[in-house]
Amino acid sequence: MTLLAETLAAIEPPSAQSRSEADQRQRQLTKPPGALGALEELGTRLAGIYGSCPPPLAEPVAVAVFAADHGVHDQGVSPWPQEVTAQMVVNFLSGGAAINALARQCGAQVTVVDVGVASQVPPAQGLLSRKVRAGTADMTQGPAMSDEEAQAALVTGIEVSRDLVEQGHRLLVAGDMGIANTTASAALVSVFTGRDVASVTGRGAGIDDAMLRHKIAVVGRALEMHRPSREEPLRALAAVGGLEHAAITGFLLGAAALRIPVVLDGVIACSAALVAQALAPVAVEYWIAGHRSSEPGASAALQHLGLEPLVDLGLRLGEGSGATLAVPLVQAAARVLAEMATFDQAGVSDKG
Amino acid sequence: MTLLAETLAAIEPPSAQSRSEADQRQRQLTKPPGALGALEELGTRLAGIYGSCPPPLAEPVAVAVFAADHGVHDQGVSPWPQEVTAQMVVNFLSGGAAINALARQCGAQVTVVDVGVASQVPPAQGLLSRKVRAGTADMTQGPAMSDEEAQAALVTGIEVSRDLVEQGHRLLVAGDMGIANTTASAALVSVFTGRDVASVTGRGAGIDDAMLRHKIAVVGRALEMHRPSREEPLRALAAVGGLEHAAITGFLLGAAALRIPVVLDGVIACSAALVAQALAPVAVEYWIAGHRSSEPGASAALQHLGLEPLVDLGLRLGEGSGATLAVPLVQAAARVLAEMATFDQAGVSDKG
Repeated sequence: MTLLAETLAAIEPPSAQSRSEADQRQRQLTKPPGALGALEELGTRLAGIYGSCPPPLAEPVAVAVFAADHGVHDQGVSPWPQEVTAQMVVNFLSGGAAINALARQCGAQVTVVDVGVASQVPPAQGLLSRKVRAGTADMTQGPAMSDEEAQAALVTGIEVSRDLVEQGHRLLVAGDMGIANTTASAALVSVFTGRDVASVTGRGAGIDDAMLRHKIAVVGRALEMHRPSREEPLRALAAVGGLEHAAITGFLLGAAALRIPVVLDGVIACSAALVAQALAPVAVEYWIAGHRSSEPGASAALQHLGLEPLVDLGLRLGEGSGATLAVPLVQAAARVLAEMATFDQAGVSDKG
Repeated sequence: MTLLAETLAAIEPPSAQSRSEADQRQRQLTKPPGALGALEELGTRLAGIYGSCPPPLAEPVAVAVFAADHGVHDQGVSPWPQEVTAQMVVNFLSGGAAINALARQCGAQVTVVDVGVASQVPPAQGLLSRKVRAGTADMTQGPAMSDEEAQAALVTGIEVSRDLVEQGHRLLVAGDMGIANTTASAALVSVFTGRDVASVTGRGAGIDDAMLRHKIAVVGRALEMHRPSREEPLRALAAVGGLEHAAITGFLLGAAALRIPVVLDGVIACSAALVAQALAPVAVEYWIAGHRSSEPGASAALQHLGLEPLVDLGLRLGEGSGATLAVPLVQAAARVLAEMATFDQAGVSDKG
């Protein structure tokens, strides 16, 4: 059996028993029932995911930033030069990017995975060199990658989540870096949600109206050429996805197989989650929507996944930034269940 | 000059210079301009508040929970017995309440201030015994407190913020505990925003339709009796407010005078902020809306204050819980400005 098949076979639903114990405990804690709103539902979900009530405190945390380039960049879908992907990888490794500041804020470790950066990235502490190929091909000219390459990137993601969990991490964040990767994301979101390309294609790192119209046309052309279907998720991923999308798909499945929650970031992670959901529908129960990106495809994907985001502050940066910002909220949800006293313990009168 | 007059005289606008430096720096950091959304505006605000760019990391954090009882409880506006206020104070002091768990999550210290609990609270580590009176009088029978009592509670709040800042805290959270205190909050919100009582009165810790209708009628009767006006903020506070509202009003003013930001919690802190804003309009620039409580008066107050909340998860607990949940987001906003590299520093190409 391949690692992918093994992983898919290992994914089971969260524990209904722990979930139900948590649900009951929420009503015994010294607060009016439901007064912590969505934090209570999240805490209860965590109990089910970890299979224990109260759940552990969802720490330590690891952020994996999957970096790759995109052949569709040739079509003029981004104002940023392609070398920015590699430059930002170097920035991640020297600790100067937004994801580094946000990870330090919550004590998370950052690992950068080169799964397909176009140029060579010199070895460094914190970098995993797992390049499958030096960027995808242009999806408007042929498939972005071969089925074998998509699977190799996906297996890399499974291995990365497995290794981070083996190192002791109990909460994972899926981040990304790749100039033009919102174009591939829009294509995947359209395929897996069935929505119109124009409604799920956004301005990415910031493009004008003319470039947005062009980007929508480019995605439309690629979908017309490949006619990808959600019935064949790996084929669709290979045709119009990115190497980081494939790796994040694997990362999400690998974590679910190990019963470790993953916080989703914006449209790149959410579009990869659609592929992963198509491969293993129950795995979605292990994922937490970190934030609502201002990229329209992210909201479309979250709705399809049935997930409500924790933070909604108009972020559209990627890297795992919005997800990492939400990490303390996830941990707070666990901590409430783990540390609050019950009415009985505290000697507080319940309501009349 | 009284401490209140001194405090009001000391409140100055945040530094326009530091704000403008921060605004410029946001555009040099290695991210597309605006890609961190509301976090960028918040970081820029923090630079202005602290008067330095980059701002300090907004730590250490102190949560002050102001506890008091309410004579209007006699009117049957809450299903919870009044002794729950004192019982919850004991719970705070032994570390078993939601605010304790949430404060531990972000490393904040919790101080409980008894500014008017009806029964006696035994001395304990972490408790400041500053009782002005043993709960307010019933606002439907006469003023909730005298003008002198309201001022005494307000001065207590100023002193508490001053002491916490002297101890080295650089970010404050205003929390509350007081059975029936959403009734007093609704009255204050109606007075200071000019909105209809029914539209700003909510279910507090959870009441049914019949009790909500009754609660609206009770607030309406009190406002009809006292005819409080936002032109006389201290008189309005004394007539229909609570001792914790008065103390939080002072706490917010005291922090603003010292250029220290305060994160607002739900409807109790937000209604106190309306009183403080009436006394010193510029002080609102020192306050950060932590979350959108599901209590309607909180949203009405935030709109009047011109503040957008950071978190919107349907919390309605008080204690400072929603504000404390937002603390890591505030700190993240500061950290981005303080720690991210610029395009020049990182050698990253800007967009074409």
